[in-house]
Amino acid sequence: MTVAIAAPPLGPLLHDLVRNHRPRRETGSVPANIPFLADVPFNKFGIAVATTSGQVFSSGDADVPFSIQSISKVFTLAMALQGDTTGRLWSRVLREPSGTPFNSLVQLEAEHGIPRNPFINAGALVVTDHLMEGTYDAAAWVLRFLTAQAGISGPYIDEAAAASELSGSSRNLALAHFLKDFGNLKRPAEAVVENYVRHCSIMMTCVELAKAGLFLAGEGRGTAGPVLSPSDAKRVGSIMLTCGMYDAAGEFAYRVGLPGKSGVGGGILVIVPGECSICVWSPRLDGKGNSLAGTAALADLSDRTGWSVF
Amino acid sequence: MTVAIAAPPLGPLLHDLVRNHRPRRETGSVPANIPFLADVPFNKFGIAVATTSGQVFSSGDADVPFSIQSISKVFTLAMALQGDTTGRLWSRVLREPSGTPFNSLVQLEAEHGIPRNPFINAGALVVTDHLMEGTYDAAAWVLRFLTAQAGISGPYIDEAAAASELSGSSRNLALAHFLKDFGNLKRPAEAVVENYVRHCSIMMTCVELAKAGLFLAGEGRGTAGPVLSPSDAKRVGSIMLTCGMYDAAGEFAYRVGLPGKSGVGGGILVIVPGECSICVWSPRLDGKGNSLAGTAALADLSDRTGWSVF
Amino acid sequence: MTVAIAAPPLGPLLHDLVRNHRPRRETGSVPANIPFLADVPFNKFGIAVATTSGQVFSSGDADVPFSIQSISKVFTLAMALQGDTTGRLWSRVLREPSGTPFNSLVQLEAEHGIPRNPFINAGALVVTDHLMEGTYDAAAWVLRFLTAQAGISGPYIDEAAAASELSGSSRNLALAHFLKDFGNLKRPAEAVVENYVRHCSIMMTCVELAKAGLFLAGEGRGTAGPVLSPSDAKRVGSIMLTCGMYDAAGEFAYRVGLPGKSGVGGGILVIVPGECSICVWSPRLDGKGNSLAGTAALADLSDRTGWSVF
Amino acid sequence: MTVAIAAPPLGPLLHDLVRNHRPRRETGSVPANIPFLADVPFNKFGIAVATTSGQVFSSGDADVPFSIQSISKVFTLAMALQGDTTGRLWSRVLREPSGTPFNSLVQLEAEHGIPRNPFINAGALVVTDHLMEGTYDAAAWVLRFLTAQAGISGPYIDEAAAASELSGSSRNLALAHFLKDFGNLKRPAEAVVENYVRHCSIMMTCVELAKAGLFLAGEGRGTAGPVLSPSDAKRVGSIMLTCGMYDAAGEFAYRVGLPGKSGVGGGILVIVPGECSICVWSPRLDGKGNSLAGTAALADLSDRTGWSVF
Repeated sequence: MTVAIAAPPLGPLLHDLVRNHRPRRETGSVPANIPFLADVPFNKFGIAVATTSGQVFSSGDADVPFSIQSISKVFTLAMALQGDTTGRLWSRVLREPSGTPFNSLVQLEAEHGIPRNPFINAGALVVTDHLMEGTYDAAAWVLRFLTAQAGISGPYIDEAAAASELSGSSRNLALAHFLKDFGNLKRPAEAVVENYVRHCSIMMTCVELAKAGLFLAGEGRGTAGPVLSPSDAKRVGSIMLTCGMYDAAGEFAYRVGLPGKSGVGGGILVIVPGECSICVWSPRLDGKGNSLAGTAALADLSDRTGWSVF
Repeated sequence: MTVAIAAPPLGPLLHDLVRNHRPRRETGSVPANIPFLADVPFNKFGIAVATTSGQVFSSGDADVPFSIQSISKVFTLAMALQGDTTGRLWSRVLREPSGTPFNSLVQLEAEHGIPRNPFINAGALVVTDHLMEGTYDAAAWVLRFLTAQAGISGPYIDEAAAASELSGSSRNLALAHFLKDFGNLKRPAEAVVENYVRHCSIMMTCVELAKAGLFLAGEGRGTAGPVLSPSDAKRVGSIMLTCGMYDAAGEFAYRVGLPGKSGVGGGILVIVPGECSICVWSPRLDGKGNSLAGTAALADLSDRTGWSVF
Repeated sequence: MTVAIAAPPLGPLLHDLVRNHRPRRETGSVPANIPFLADVPFNKFGIAVATTSGQVFSSGDADVPFSIQSISKVFTLAMALQGDTTGRLWSRVLREPSGTPFNSLVQLEAEHGIPRNPFINAGALVVTDHLMEGTYDAAAWVLRFLTAQAGISGPYIDEAAAASELSGSSRNLALAHFLKDFGNLKRPAEAVVENYVRHCSIMMTCVELAKAGLFLAGEGRGTAGPVLSPSDAKRVGSIMLTCGMYDAAGEFAYRVGLPGKSGVGGGILVIVPGECSICVWSPRLDGKGNSLAGTAALADLSDRTGWSVF
Repeated sequence: MTVAIAAPPLGPLLHDLVRNHRPRRETGSVPANIPFLADVPFNKFGIAVATTSGQVFSSGDADVPFSIQSISKVFTLAMALQGDTTGRLWSRVLREPSGTPFNSLVQLEAEHGIPRNPFINAGALVVTDHLMEGTYDAAAWVLRFLTAQAGISGPYIDEAAAASELSGSSRNLALAHFLKDFGNLKRPAEAVVENYVRHCSIMMTCVELAKAGLFLAGEGRGTAGPVLSPSDAKRVGSIMLTCGMYDAAGEFAYRVGLPGKSGVGGGILVIVPGECSICVWSPRLDGKGNSLAGTAALADLSDRTGWSVF
């Protein structure tokens, strides 16, 4: 588990990754149900690394804000665990890989309204509902949390994008009403979906996200002090590794070997336990909904640094 | 990822685990379809650790042979990867968690005969079929491999148990004929199931299994020299972590944080990358088919040593 | 197919059925999600027969209004077929038995938003949406249709019951949003569910329902003139026979041998082609959601009259 | 239900159907898993009607033997019911439409080894196993039964075809072993599949099949005397109507309105209760596995005669 880092210095390495992986031609797809994401130029590519020793490295479009989408699920989970000393959250959502597409209703029906994990949409809706017990405007709370972790005032909610996404949220509304039917949603379905869509519509840069995720690499300690207990931080990492990449978690663990969470905005947040937090971004997606160029760059990075939890 | 081992010395720690986790009353279940496993006394408990530095520690019933059952799947996968320079194996089986019970036919039907991973029964049948291309008596080959890795002549096939299990193998025969129907089995279904059941019926002790699994902790280098490339060894570890504990892989990653593979004989093989290979055994199972006392002991061990990949 | 009716005269026969099948003790269940239905006394039992020759026979509580619930689906289908000269409806809903519980989302997902038939909830929501193209207040239109067919001004919407049911309609809202997500709903999901719940909350008596269903027995000709073409009337009958009794259509066809449609209010509408329309009502349900005493009485009636389409 | 037959005389009508529906160009498909069926010329088309008054009409290739395939399931069910005075059969197989393809394992798993009905492959295997309790060589028994009902010695088992089909029976072997695993098969899986394949490989002509099915139209009385009680005959008809056309039972009931059972050999047996038994044959199939030209001819026949149970 000790990693002999005979890796090249990070600065030049990141530049090299940008050079090799920035898309030259348009390949991959854009999410059909979120039109504005299709407007992002296909050749965007950024990467940033925040180390537990306090350094930040970046290259490419690392300072361009993008829609974090499902990456917000890592942070809402962490926020829910902060206040959940009694383990109530884990009676409402499991911690197992799903084996079906992330927004499927089938498994939810088979398992009587208990989502398989907090990173599929159904599970994230339950987590959002859980946060709304503390603060009804959960999305604003998530924004404050991310701003504090990023250490700068950059992150913001793209309200126009959120409104657009909300108007196409039939699948999420179906999931929310279904959860309600099973008694696993306390707030109104519409309000939970609205909060969910708004915290998914937070705009951040690679640098901001890498810094915001640092507590997951640093035994729960983030840029602004303790966020989670060391064991809770490790456990969020375990859920990222088994469930973080939609239905490609196994493939990502196989190729990259690190806990990660992707979003359909093209971002991927990756944790090297004890070492650093990494955010890569490129907007075009593979068939499973993960950034095509981002995944390739992370596999390359893992090979060249030896970073892997295995 | 560096692990500061301020753990107590391993010898006394293992004794302590045996003292705390050896079952005093009968709880848990036995596999309904393999009658002879029910005859093993409920209060058996053994644990062994083989380190990459060449030491072996053990306690309890660590020298009592037990039926390795599905733990053999780790080794058949490794053997298949040894010869698979062209990646043909990965065109016949995926590397994703299954999200359904390990011997379900549903997912196999939905995915047109390509098993989700090599550790569910369907996947292990494909791996066995793959091995039979090299040596028709694949079970004997697995036994030779395990004996070589364990470094002693202890392991043997319990032929009476295999025959008994084979007579109750309707589910595996159904899976094998189903794979055949999809064109994903080359040898006769009956022959593949027989080889599969026989390599699952190999009897080994905790000490032997810990030593046999050492190459997975040591960058592919086992007791008797190189077995896999470092990257293949890591990748087997990633599949263990995401798929190794039936439908409790996520829970095990959450509680223990280490790659593991369990068998319904009550054994669990666990890898601490770079450090050691661990085998724990206690025959009674939880609702997911994993050793009840074994899982608890491993969670305890992880807490006390800090061993975790996250 | 010729039916030799050596049956006893209908008046005394119906009295006999009431005597034999009116529940003496409370057995069966009430629908969990519609509380007010549980308030109906368990020992209610009514039956009415309207013949194509213009006679009406009845016995028991045949003049007590009850909630027609899913029986409305027969009439909304007929109304949709009236105006559907281009067959557009059949591009949005199939005509096959479902083989899964009536409000399951699984099949809908597997078949990409095209419900299996117009009598499962998803299919009835599509039919309701189809009617709303003609008249936004589809429920009022259904009420007018039923009143005209019954020939008296008895039917009414129980608005309090509808409001109560609407507040517990999470499952139907989930279905409607899911249909919307697949592009198979034109009006807003909430409005479609409201219309659906309201036409399910129409209150009618056995006598009224038997008369309203007469056009299905009489080659499309009802009490007030032609409703459907003879072939469309037959075809509605075929859908009743294959899909009308939730997941017990096969069992009902086997025991009773007549096209029927049941509702969780305890009513069952049955057609004897060429002869008569029958409505039986008793509020307690079997495990499939069909009236327990009603089903038994219909099996008895079929045995004693020889009425069967087979 | 009384049918006013103002239909044209049957002889000329059948000739007309042959003229209109015999395929002129090759359309439709052949079953992928039974190669010899592809060798039958696409333009074969035959039809025969046997009336309860003792007449037989036929036209086209009505005397050419073809493989009856799944049509045998109607007769094995009738044979099982003959001896089943205790209803034991119905504890092992349901009577509900399946809603999934006829040889799917999914529903079988969901319903714990109890097939949905006797006409899907799993159900027919259970019926075959049931027959084997009486006579181990069930296929020979089915042949004797069919020969007796047809009243001539024409039917025979195409042993070469059976052997060929058996070698491609992986799916049926999977189903049989799966049933065995659930305890719902008494004889060895291989023996049941062999008997099943052999009675599916019986060769008969349209004329023979129409005569053999006459007891289903005639209240249980066949060409050679009583076969079933009137109520059992009706009930077989009800299962044909709800389950007889694979996953197109609803569509067939809608278009044709008569109980039918098809086979992938291109035959369809149809019952007009009280009137006649009809067999049509043309070898090319639609997407659901039913004869393309045969289904069209039956819809035409139903329209022109008014024959329909609705």
